[in-house]
Amino acid sequence: MTEKTREAALAYHATSPAGKIAIQPTKPCNTQGDLALAYTPGVAEPVRAIAASPEDAYRYTAKGNLVAVVSDGTAVLGLGNVGPLASKPVLEGKAVLFKRFADIDVFDLEIKASSAEQFIEVVAALEPTFGGINLEDIAAPACFAIEKALSERLSIPVFHDDQHGTAVIVCAGLLNALELQGKSLKTARIVCLGAGAAGLTSLHLLMSLGAAVENMILVDSRGVVHSERTDLNRYKQPFAHTTPLRTLAEAMNGADVFIGVAAADLVDAQMIRAMAPRPVVFALANPVPEILPEVAHAARGDLVMATGRSDYPNQVNNVLGFPFIFRGALDVRARQINQAMQLGAVHALSALAKQPIPREVLRAYGLDHLEFGPDYFIPKPLDGRLREWVPAAVAAAAVDTGVAQAPYPAHYPPRPAPSA
Amino acid sequence: MTEKTREAALAYHATSPAGKIAIQPTKPCNTQGDLALAYTPGVAEPVRAIAASPEDAYRYTAKGNLVAVVSDGTAVLGLGNVGPLASKPVLEGKAVLFKRFADIDVFDLEIKASSAEQFIEVVAALEPTFGGINLEDIAAPACFAIEKALSERLSIPVFHDDQHGTAVIVCAGLLNALELQGKSLKTARIVCLGAGAAGLTSLHLLMSLGAAVENMILVDSRGVVHSERTDLNRYKQPFAHTTPLRTLAEAMNGADVFIGVAAADLVDAQMIRAMAPRPVVFALANPVPEILPEVAHAARGDLVMATGRSDYPNQVNNVLGFPFIFRGALDVRARQINQAMQLGAVHALSALAKQPIPREVLRAYGLDHLEFGPDYFIPKPLDGRLREWVPAAVAAAAVDTGVAQAPYPAHYPPRPAPSA
Repeated sequence: MTEKTREAALAYHATSPAGKIAIQPTKPCNTQGDLALAYTPGVAEPVRAIAASPEDAYRYTAKGNLVAVVSDGTAVLGLGNVGPLASKPVLEGKAVLFKRFADIDVFDLEIKASSAEQFIEVVAALEPTFGGINLEDIAAPACFAIEKALSERLSIPVFHDDQHGTAVIVCAGLLNALELQGKSLKTARIVCLGAGAAGLTSLHLLMSLGAAVENMILVDSRGVVHSERTDLNRYKQPFAHTTPLRTLAEAMNGADVFIGVAAADLVDAQMIRAMAPRPVVFALANPVPEILPEVAHAARGDLVMATGRSDYPNQVNNVLGFPFIFRGALDVRARQINQAMQLGAVHALSALAKQPIPREVLRAYGLDHLEFGPDYFIPKPLDGRLREWVPAAVAAAAVDTGVAQAPYPAHYPPRPAPSA
Repeated sequence: MTEKTREAALAYHATSPAGKIAIQPTKPCNTQGDLALAYTPGVAEPVRAIAASPEDAYRYTAKGNLVAVVSDGTAVLGLGNVGPLASKPVLEGKAVLFKRFADIDVFDLEIKASSAEQFIEVVAALEPTFGGINLEDIAAPACFAIEKALSERLSIPVFHDDQHGTAVIVCAGLLNALELQGKSLKTARIVCLGAGAAGLTSLHLLMSLGAAVENMILVDSRGVVHSERTDLNRYKQPFAHTTPLRTLAEAMNGADVFIGVAAADLVDAQMIRAMAPRPVVFALANPVPEILPEVAHAARGDLVMATGRSDYPNQVNNVLGFPFIFRGALDVRARQINQAMQLGAVHALSALAKQPIPREVLRAYGLDHLEFGPDYFIPKPLDGRLREWVPAAVAAAAVDTGVAQAPYPAHYPPRPAPSA
């Protein structure tokens, strides 16, 4: 960021009222009569109704459209463990995105916890308040145990966006990129640099789409993950193959796909040139990718590429996923956001990128023309069709897998066929 | 409530969107440029600023105007232990009142806790998120320990409204009622029926105003609290005098003041007639008071009376207190809401009731005329002057007692003299 951008960002946040979200009453509350309905004595009626029938909470309170975005502040953006208080601007920002893109109300909750167990207890205790939980910016590997424990204990969806949200967009983009390159996910050799929440979960979701674990090479800060290493946590172990490869450069040799979810500038032109013909490069570190597109494209002419940045083509941006995944899950009152629902989102995003782009979307980006190809294989965030396509696929998958507690919504588009 | 009112209350809550509050972004968030400020990459700047200087959370996030209304659902309205989920309409209603009366943003949090200790841990962990904590609808005596523990642990205000909010309005009303009756708080014989959060805390705040504990008779569901009882928790013990009195009727004999915070119809005309000349009767059970005003006034002509209802004169309504007390506390970034601040609110409310009423306030209530006297000695909730008078008194007391972390606000009315 330039100094000017920094100042603009601080000024934006400091403009009165400070911060980015506020509460808005949704019902009239001006007269004594209004207040008698909103508070005493009228409020006793919904209280009695919910005490008699807990389901009525979805009828008489905001619970059904309310998501908690929760963090302990241990892995905030690329800034690391800045603590819960300093994570508040990020979580408020997430609340803004949920509202803007899917009309979901979000309370941001920054939690001071001294252990994963304490964090789990706090979030679990909040279950009555919310219709869903979005975990955010929690360091790996604690994030895996936290999500697992909460998903098992709670009967509302628990979704760690840094894992599954990222994985959904990565998979949707990769399916399309491989199609453009005439390659198959089943046989593609995939190198993943970064063994945290995003990397590991993306690999697992790719496997559920047909990728083979034996074709995957995981690389962390100490080099290739392999069977002779003794420093691996249990989440990295499934990827520890017997292999002579030790360095990222060695791993890149002949690879079809590179997924970078690590840090700036870790990949050079030489590594890109050593990849297989027609490679796919997802360099997703933010704000500076593992390799800049201009450098990668200069190294060879036959690659297709995505980054995490909005100023290059094919942005892998979580906002394509979480608002719409939660929208679908909430609208059928899903008890969880399972893999089938995530795959529904993957296929919806992948399919949407192949559709002609409406003129108003082009206009929002100041573009005359754009069509499916190397410069456009991931939908754009301001594409209003996202709000139809993705929730429909997610809701349909929830119904198909028996985790929905309400039917596929009547106001949704005609129900899509079960995804492949 | 009539059947029609019941239906209206349910319909009000069920009108789409369900419930009473939603989130509203406070900054533009439509273009890609807006989103780059609200989320990545711009959001990294306030994160860095807060990580470096925690105080900056008040500058760049909503924390400073954000209060948690928190309950475990163990003492909801007069309905008892309905659990956290069923308390949600009440807590949302409280959020509406905070916003409507003092422009304070509130997240309602319904917490599933199996013990007071667990509840304390959950709320304490949420400290980074909020500028203040309003505890609500928590059963006595657990509420006393919970508030004490949280007040000691947190450096943001923790306020149990059922205790202190009620006590503030009761005290303000009683000061004025006693003045009207030509009596002194120092010598008044006070009977309090109800030994829960509201009753015990009201008696303590009355003592801080000069009432004598030896003139107080506390009555709980088993009768008069006295020195020979062995079933008293430690919160009732300060009121256990050596006395031959055993029943409410015996206690009422010659009493100057009755405070009822118990249940419907526990007081009869005979008890009212047995009170001292010019008595004060606060029958605050909701929706049906301990004795109806028409019954009490028929019993004798020299009493002055308050209830908890809006359809009788002199409503003891917490909305006169909590929005404005928190407004004052937040505006000077008070670390706590101490007794001096509560007394500031008492005196402001008491003084406001003696002022001529502006025409627009009369109009809001469809009244032609009203002045300080037996039919009006407590301010009315829709009186816009509350928002000036009460926060000013609270903020001034916070500054005077050294718990303010920001100066008395420049946009407030001229600073009132320290209260008596």
